[in-house]
Amino acid sequence: MRVLAAQINQTIGDLEGNARRVLAALKRAKEKKADIVLFPELTLSGYFPDDFLLDNAFIEACWEKLEEIRPATQGMFVVVGLPRRNPMGKEKSLFNSAAVFANGKLLGFKDKTLLPTYDVFDERRYFEPGCEQPIFEYLGRKIAVTICEDVWQHSKQAGYSDYHCDPVEDLKEKHPDLVLNISGSPYYFNRKDVRLSVFQAVAKTLCCPVILCNQVGVNDQLVFDGHSLYLNEKGETIQIAKGFAEDDLWIDLEVHACPCAMPENGIKDLYEALVLGVRDYLHKQGFKKGMLGLSGGIDSALVACIAKDALGAENVLALSLPSRYSSPGSVSDAVHLAKNLRIELRHVPIDSVFQSYLDLLEPTFENEMCELAEENIQSRIRGAILMAFSNQYGHILLNTGNKSEMAMGYTTLYGDMAGGLGVLHDVTKLHIYQLAAYVNKKQEVIPEAIIRKVPSAELKPNQTDFDTLPAFEVLDPVIEDYIEERLTPEQIAAKRKLPLDFVRDLAHKMHLAEYKRRQAPISIRVTQKAFSKGRVIPIVQKWR
Amino acid sequence: MRVLAAQINQTIGDLEGNARRVLAALKRAKEKKADIVLFPELTLSGYFPDDFLLDNAFIEACWEKLEEIRPATQGMFVVVGLPRRNPMGKEKSLFNSAAVFANGKLLGFKDKTLLPTYDVFDERRYFEPGCEQPIFEYLGRKIAVTICEDVWQHSKQAGYSDYHCDPVEDLKEKHPDLVLNISGSPYYFNRKDVRLSVFQAVAKTLCCPVILCNQVGVNDQLVFDGHSLYLNEKGETIQIAKGFAEDDLWIDLEVHACPCAMPENGIKDLYEALVLGVRDYLHKQGFKKGMLGLSGGIDSALVACIAKDALGAENVLALSLPSRYSSPGSVSDAVHLAKNLRIELRHVPIDSVFQSYLDLLEPTFENEMCELAEENIQSRIRGAILMAFSNQYGHILLNTGNKSEMAMGYTTLYGDMAGGLGVLHDVTKLHIYQLAAYVNKKQEVIPEAIIRKVPSAELKPNQTDFDTLPAFEVLDPVIEDYIEERLTPEQIAAKRKLPLDFVRDLAHKMHLAEYKRRQAPISIRVTQKAFSKGRVIPIVQKWR
Repeated sequence: MRVLAAQINQTIGDLEGNARRVLAALKRAKEKKADIVLFPELTLSGYFPDDFLLDNAFIEACWEKLEEIRPATQGMFVVVGLPRRNPMGKEKSLFNSAAVFANGKLLGFKDKTLLPTYDVFDERRYFEPGCEQPIFEYLGRKIAVTICEDVWQHSKQAGYSDYHCDPVEDLKEKHPDLVLNISGSPYYFNRKDVRLSVFQAVAKTLCCPVILCNQVGVNDQLVFDGHSLYLNEKGETIQIAKGFAEDDLWIDLEVHACPCAMPENGIKDLYEALVLGVRDYLHKQGFKKGMLGLSGGIDSALVACIAKDALGAENVLALSLPSRYSSPGSVSDAVHLAKNLRIELRHVPIDSVFQSYLDLLEPTFENEMCELAEENIQSRIRGAILMAFSNQYGHILLNTGNKSEMAMGYTTLYGDMAGGLGVLHDVTKLHIYQLAAYVNKKQEVIPEAIIRKVPSAELKPNQTDFDTLPAFEVLDPVIEDYIEERLTPEQIAAKRKLPLDFVRDLAHKMHLAEYKRRQAPISIRVTQKAFSKGRVIPIVQKWR
Repeated sequence: MRVLAAQINQTIGDLEGNARRVLAALKRAKEKKADIVLFPELTLSGYFPDDFLLDNAFIEACWEKLEEIRPATQGMFVVVGLPRRNPMGKEKSLFNSAAVFANGKLLGFKDKTLLPTYDVFDERRYFEPGCEQPIFEYLGRKIAVTICEDVWQHSKQAGYSDYHCDPVEDLKEKHPDLVLNISGSPYYFNRKDVRLSVFQAVAKTLCCPVILCNQVGVNDQLVFDGHSLYLNEKGETIQIAKGFAEDDLWIDLEVHACPCAMPENGIKDLYEALVLGVRDYLHKQGFKKGMLGLSGGIDSALVACIAKDALGAENVLALSLPSRYSSPGSVSDAVHLAKNLRIELRHVPIDSVFQSYLDLLEPTFENEMCELAEENIQSRIRGAILMAFSNQYGHILLNTGNKSEMAMGYTTLYGDMAGGLGVLHDVTKLHIYQLAAYVNKKQEVIPEAIIRKVPSAELKPNQTDFDTLPAFEVLDPVIEDYIEERLTPEQIAAKRKLPLDFVRDLAHKMHLAEYKRRQAPISIRVTQKAFSKGRVIPIVQKWR
């Protein structure tokens, strides 16, 4: 029995394009004589369609596409995900469903039972849980169809939730011969292992092979990494689809294959997630070219590398925007990097505009201009010039800020926070150094001088980040503990052997910056807790 | 029997301050010999605490406060809202609960049954539904305690949802003598009537008096209007608490009172909601003073009036920022308005800075600078100067953009979109004219010239909004239909007798501007569907 797990890259609401991908895969499947084909969760709408689910026309259009697909399922068992009307009309009017076809005939549906409503997920906003764990018979086999989260409770790996029921347990007494799982399971740093362990547990409990078909690609801040899986009945990993690219995972259930190991390189995966994050976001938005400000620092250097790998060197424009406070190295390092990457670099010194602001404002203020105002003006001039280039040439501006800065509010609204995509907003500074080392592994791309220099915003003489921030070796673990692990300041102080007041002060600063982050561009989520959709914290609050 | 509905203004996570308000109300209740006291939903945490609910320490701290309050309930029946642990430990570990005290003793809890998970609400992210509708006996009366949404299903007024059960129906057979409802029910335009009809239906069905205690004040984008209610057993309105202010609603259940009418003035309420929106946001954030750019147009004129009424004239700073394209009237009208309002106005002409940008950029671009770039530079200079004043003086910048512009993307990121609070982001232009007329009702505050002039961004010669936008009489109803009523372009074209292509183009533009709105400051929500938290639409999408 031959199975195709079609790991495709859908776009939200592109029903036409998503259906085209499905039909193309079914054609390949027919040519290669597949018996079973499965697609990712919410195949036709893309995961996740948000409030389009409240639009009747959207649901109807998904069903029209399903009808178009039906004839192409002739001679095969096919699982396609889509939202469907809840015929019982309970609290929510939809199910997150999988349509199951055999030989061009609709066998029935599997409605998702466990609906993640935490972090970036809000499926309860739209869906009712399905209660059944149906088994479909095909060519003498009993096939269980499950949808993503349905299998996560079994390993107690569903986040923030402990569901009433465990569909895997419910399937036990039905003795399936094969479990299919269609998923929209997003990437985050080092998550691959967790996901693998979840599916291993399913195979072991049900003593049958398990096939996961996961979405790949980027929809808004979520990166789907693919890595679809085939495990045998012992829970051994037999095949893994590509990461961060569309892929056909062809499986022959009768062939006895040796287990393989999940390739493990957290930083490589992280880099690829960021490259896909830039490429897919720009291309799905219709942009070919990106641009950025190249300061001579490590953050913008890394974004330049990612942009080049995502878009091609000819599609990246960099600007060097030095001021009176820029070190000579800033410009020459940027030149060196741009040369290494073969990307275009233009020089636009900002000092004349800066002086015109000073001439205008200094007589207006009763007192001397405060440092904060003077620093922010420079940063905002750079933002305005970058946006002027963006307007003039139609390139999207890539933002180069990092998670450590975003956490602490060590950023300027409308200045270094400007842009259409926050490439590194979910990457802490220590990870940025690791990514730079990864980029330089084969040969020096990012000049050593950039990596070695003390981080600085260069907005006043002799400034360094550490005038304001603690060392990143201290700060980054606190950010990870507080934001990702959701530990209290008390727990962090004990874990990291830091003074409680110091940790409290950092936590307080993270909350103070909330209003700034709300005005940040959309960013690429690569950790289990990014500053964005999945973290709902009020601006006005007195708790932390 | 005397009841106090204590309509208080809580701050999220200010457990100390919220408990202080509760204790003060209980003291007043004791002095005035009240028998029953009720507070708004989630009294101790404030509504809505978002992801603080995932923090164990937060839940524990709420319970410590509850213990502090308990002794003060001596001699009374008291209902206080707070999150509580779900002892069954099901999918979500909390209930949205009300603790019920009598004479200093905890009688029990009422756990919210209907959990709104739509629009701005996401209670299913944190809470399990409570199944019971308990009755508490006190002084011979059977008292039903309900929490906000619990009574909304009965009138089928719960948005986007049709719950399995109807707690009001369940209460019927228990024959309560009195129904209490504690709410965190936010304001939106003309919602008061809907809310009243919901509570009338409860009283009529259960043939007993109903008392609603609603939160007042602003937490992030939500404005809670108060307007707590006392209806008699016929569903007649007997008493209404103040709107947009803290208030003690004292009710004597034995006194036969005549019905009163709900004061109805949609525009007055809207104005008051905006004033409270500015005042409470600034004060809760620790700001005393606000500032804004006064362009001579109607939007900024209205924001100046709102800011003055919210903060006092001495706490508002306005800047006039004319350029070569500003009409002479722009400056003189701003002067006139500032004089009427007695707010400080400073003049900062931007032309010298604008010229320095042109001198810098024009030689850099191969072709002539495009109009878009040139217009945006001016807008961004204004944004940078306003922010420089904000940095220098510590005032918060009030943004003056309106919903019609925000819908169409007729705004400049980092320019006229800069600020800490979008005062009018949920107010369409036609409503702005109505609000201006309301402000001028007693005497001319906003000069007639400002109201009469053709709207213009004044970023190029002889520009008007209508070079780019349709008339607001056409545009605003389409925005309301598409965003608030969620009609399809087809339905709108039919309803408004407009060409379908024209409506589709407007809808398309609304979606194109999604990426801009994500970078907008937080705004005051005053309609049933604002561009913000309650409207979850992907940026990357091909549906509309």
